[in-house]
Amino acid sequence: MPTVKNPPIKTPIKTIGLFGKYGGKDLGEIIRGLGEFLRTRKLNILLEQETAALIKDSTTPSRAITAMGKEIDLAIVVGGDGSMLQVARGLAAYRVPLIGVKLGRLGFLADVSTQNMQQALGDILEGHFQTEERFMLDAEIVRAGRVIQTANAFNDVVINKGERARLIEYETYVDGEFVSDARADGVIVATPTGSTAYALSAGGPIVHPAVPAIVLAPICPHTLSNRPIVVNSDCKIEIVMKNLQNAAYVSFDGQSDHLLQDSDRVRIRRADTPVTLIHPAQRSHYEVLRAKLHWSNKF
Amino acid sequence: MPTVKNPPIKTPIKTIGLFGKYGGKDLGEIIRGLGEFLRTRKLNILLEQETAALIKDSTTPSRAITAMGKEIDLAIVVGGDGSMLQVARGLAAYRVPLIGVKLGRLGFLADVSTQNMQQALGDILEGHFQTEERFMLDAEIVRAGRVIQTANAFNDVVINKGERARLIEYETYVDGEFVSDARADGVIVATPTGSTAYALSAGGPIVHPAVPAIVLAPICPHTLSNRPIVVNSDCKIEIVMKNLQNAAYVSFDGQSDHLLQDSDRVRIRRADTPVTLIHPAQRSHYEVLRAKLHWSNKF
Amino acid sequence: MPTVKNPPIKTPIKTIGLFGKYGGKDLGEIIRGLGEFLRTRKLNILLEQETAALIKDSTTPSRAITAMGKEIDLAIVVGGDGSMLQVARGLAAYRVPLIGVKLGRLGFLADVSTQNMQQALGDILEGHFQTEERFMLDAEIVRAGRVIQTANAFNDVVINKGERARLIEYETYVDGEFVSDARADGVIVATPTGSTAYALSAGGPIVHPAVPAIVLAPICPHTLSNRPIVVNSDCKIEIVMKNLQNAAYVSFDGQSDHLLQDSDRVRIRRADTPVTLIHPAQRSHYEVLRAKLHWSNKF
Amino acid sequence: MPTVKNPPIKTPIKTIGLFGKYGGKDLGEIIRGLGEFLRTRKLNILLEQETAALIKDSTTPSRAITAMGKEIDLAIVVGGDGSMLQVARGLAAYRVPLIGVKLGRLGFLADVSTQNMQQALGDILEGHFQTEERFMLDAEIVRAGRVIQTANAFNDVVINKGERARLIEYETYVDGEFVSDARADGVIVATPTGSTAYALSAGGPIVHPAVPAIVLAPICPHTLSNRPIVVNSDCKIEIVMKNLQNAAYVSFDGQSDHLLQDSDRVRIRRADTPVTLIHPAQRSHYEVLRAKLHWSNKF
Repeated sequence: MPTVKNPPIKTPIKTIGLFGKYGGKDLGEIIRGLGEFLRTRKLNILLEQETAALIKDSTTPSRAITAMGKEIDLAIVVGGDGSMLQVARGLAAYRVPLIGVKLGRLGFLADVSTQNMQQALGDILEGHFQTEERFMLDAEIVRAGRVIQTANAFNDVVINKGERARLIEYETYVDGEFVSDARADGVIVATPTGSTAYALSAGGPIVHPAVPAIVLAPICPHTLSNRPIVVNSDCKIEIVMKNLQNAAYVSFDGQSDHLLQDSDRVRIRRADTPVTLIHPAQRSHYEVLRAKLHWSNKF
Repeated sequence: MPTVKNPPIKTPIKTIGLFGKYGGKDLGEIIRGLGEFLRTRKLNILLEQETAALIKDSTTPSRAITAMGKEIDLAIVVGGDGSMLQVARGLAAYRVPLIGVKLGRLGFLADVSTQNMQQALGDILEGHFQTEERFMLDAEIVRAGRVIQTANAFNDVVINKGERARLIEYETYVDGEFVSDARADGVIVATPTGSTAYALSAGGPIVHPAVPAIVLAPICPHTLSNRPIVVNSDCKIEIVMKNLQNAAYVSFDGQSDHLLQDSDRVRIRRADTPVTLIHPAQRSHYEVLRAKLHWSNKF
Repeated sequence: MPTVKNPPIKTPIKTIGLFGKYGGKDLGEIIRGLGEFLRTRKLNILLEQETAALIKDSTTPSRAITAMGKEIDLAIVVGGDGSMLQVARGLAAYRVPLIGVKLGRLGFLADVSTQNMQQALGDILEGHFQTEERFMLDAEIVRAGRVIQTANAFNDVVINKGERARLIEYETYVDGEFVSDARADGVIVATPTGSTAYALSAGGPIVHPAVPAIVLAPICPHTLSNRPIVVNSDCKIEIVMKNLQNAAYVSFDGQSDHLLQDSDRVRIRRADTPVTLIHPAQRSHYEVLRAKLHWSNKF
Repeated sequence: MPTVKNPPIKTPIKTIGLFGKYGGKDLGEIIRGLGEFLRTRKLNILLEQETAALIKDSTTPSRAITAMGKEIDLAIVVGGDGSMLQVARGLAAYRVPLIGVKLGRLGFLADVSTQNMQQALGDILEGHFQTEERFMLDAEIVRAGRVIQTANAFNDVVINKGERARLIEYETYVDGEFVSDARADGVIVATPTGSTAYALSAGGPIVHPAVPAIVLAPICPHTLSNRPIVVNSDCKIEIVMKNLQNAAYVSFDGQSDHLLQDSDRVRIRRADTPVTLIHPAQRSHYEVLRAKLHWSNKF
């Protein structure tokens, strides 16, 4: 799962999907500007349905995200890391490469700025770019032997206590082997992409996206020796709820919580299809880390 | 607020309250044994109401906990640290000293074992003991300028995100001075007593009970430099909820959650009346720490 | 030991000592400017001896730091926190209040900037200021029952492995009670002032200067459950070296290392005489923390 | 680099090397017992030279460790993890599989107990075992463009301040890309094997040996946001010393310190030849973690 620079992406690029989830007042202008810029390059544009509604564009062809994966050759996401996560999950089955145009602060995923957007996209369309493959997680909730829910996640699968519980108890298995039982506020199962999100707040390490690894980070564990563990990304991970009296929840990239019951098993493994990110040619992952994590700040 | 050894406790001791909250099958036997032992010493016994119901004792005089404070000279709590916390909160206004008889594992607060209970209590009744004063916290929730809720806590006041929120935002003020704004899962405001409970799981330091200090420990903060702070116990602490879109909750020793709204202020200060704990004469706080935190375990 | 605002300082102020340790090219100019400014206010100036040599001033009266304490009513230190630590140690016996003029970045201790130095000092000399009392540590090394070395420290007393050792072993005692034995790179015994220095790097909490507490923070402990402890500042702390095969060293505010031998005892307690710091009236400790620790930086 | 179960080891096994570094009083007896047991199975025995001297065996053929790699088909190391590290480094070029017989506590590497040693070795010789490939690190110190020292390490390469320095400054590069500059006590570059050693004390994650990753963990960093990073094991890592005024040292598995000078570069990469460990068939890595890290200890 290493970072490969410039592997072939589906070419020639004919149709581009545009996504803009969280609409500030500039969103419509930016998306329309993108559309014009791309049409002058003879490219077809498909607007994601909710984006079209948000910016009140009823003339550009639009589709539900689930219908776009098989039609578009490239996805341009205007927003932040949250928007990138959402579109990546929606297109997970299709290997459509993603470009992130950041509306606000620099993102770990959204790294093209609106100021030099046209220049950067022009460069990318002419082949000056880096591609990077990252993996997602597939998760399923198993109750009494039956899969009752499936979901995918690009950052993390998080099991957390409900608000009235003080702790949850769970057992962790990796590839069928018992790892540990623990009492904690919860547990985060994160990809390298997610290692700089919630898992970092919980004390997890920063994992470079080129490491084929999954981080298991307990949240406020009741055992001082219970530390973050990094396992191979081809491992099958299973978290089993124990003695569950109060509510516990599982969420995927912070979305779509599902209530867990005692003895529920949450199974997590690397998704079969990776996500391809397209970055400007000169982008450095470490430069983004330095900027986002403020490494230059001495005390 | 330092540990004072053997300050005068209300003497002579005439009436003892017995409390047993979480009743295993042995609870009745232990409480009845305690009652007999104390009556042979010409002491009056008052049973806490729920304890009486739990052990099906309808002959010993019983009272609600709120009515016991002014009648008893000493409280013996059979259970664990959770029971000690609850009885301490219930008797907070009355300066009744507490002895903890542990039913299960050694507690930080409950340190008399059932095996040598009669010996230990005999020694204590004959004046061979240590007393220790600890402080509690008084908290109030202020909404739109009005106090809508008050509560006290022996371990900690915890503000936590609801289960569907990913983060809360809050500002911290100490003695009216702005300390920081933060985004986190929540924040723990702990006494030294609570420093070995939830705050420890969140990365807080171990604070000896003789330190007049309050710990403010963020839970999974979104800023890496946001570390636990220790302030003087005479400080007035105020946590103000910001931009609250999803639910946030405040709890007191892990009990009685209250839903918070945006701009709610949680004000926390040291309670006026301290809690007096009575320990066996030879008890060492550091020995308890070593045992509970497993400091002897090298890797 | 709480922060007291405006307790009486020795008045009237007649003689001021000037200290400048690390001379950048501006040091002479700043010190001479300070001297002129103070003389126009009819104040006597004493230059610290090494400062006089550094800025090549042979006309202003000068003294060794040890001789200044009984002559001056106020010390103005031009430099950074390191200079403040050094002057505070040198004047420890004399209760001379200290003002810190920062040459570079904002310090935790040196908080008057050179730009508005005259305005700030004028305000201070007219009585618009805050005073703050902080405590120092007295330490002694005991070998075979005899004190072989004494020293004081404002930030911390640090025991550290020598470079060829992988670990040291030590036992900690507080007020004669055994706390723990540990294997670690070393251990930091810090005042609240030192809690934002080396102890913070080692995972210790931020302790407000108004808390009468001492932090014991292990450095890279070999036991995961070995966490920073906060004890009352009136405790007597003793660190005993065990099984020492390779070199171990003790240092005081990072200065003057002393080689330790097996079974050496390092005894540490709060110094009798506190340090008085003078701050501009509007200075906020939390504002300094926010600036120095970059708390506004979200990721 | 994943854990592969039972890949072919060099067979048939004819000659076995015996190593015993830290001789307790039982070492001679254990090694002689092993020798007899193996000879009854028609196997040749070679004693490592220092081991032979230590147990005063002048009859069994012996060699320097450097001469043994090409003659032996299997190495049995009696001792602890430290002995395993040393023998692994000595045989690094030869792909000789290692078995560790633990003299004291369970090791991460030495997992055959002396009690059931003959049974376990019998099983292993009959093919009932797991093999596991782990990688080592190759390091070189480059001064003014020239390699002045090379070394290998199984746990970690550690750069550490000398005892009189308070901090070192260094820049980190990965595959030629600038990662960060930092001020810290030092930095640990660890294999997954080393992730449960010194790096764990410094706050690093537990990395399963099957993850092809290297951990970079700062020791007491002066920047709070400077967290452990996990990079792919095929990365070339370079640590460059900056502004070095006091001594800094580099060590390999805690051995053979080398003094560094300003601008020295320490280059670290995965060694070409992996180490093959042989474990009893039923050994579980997670069971060892649970035992060594005391995960069952709740507080």
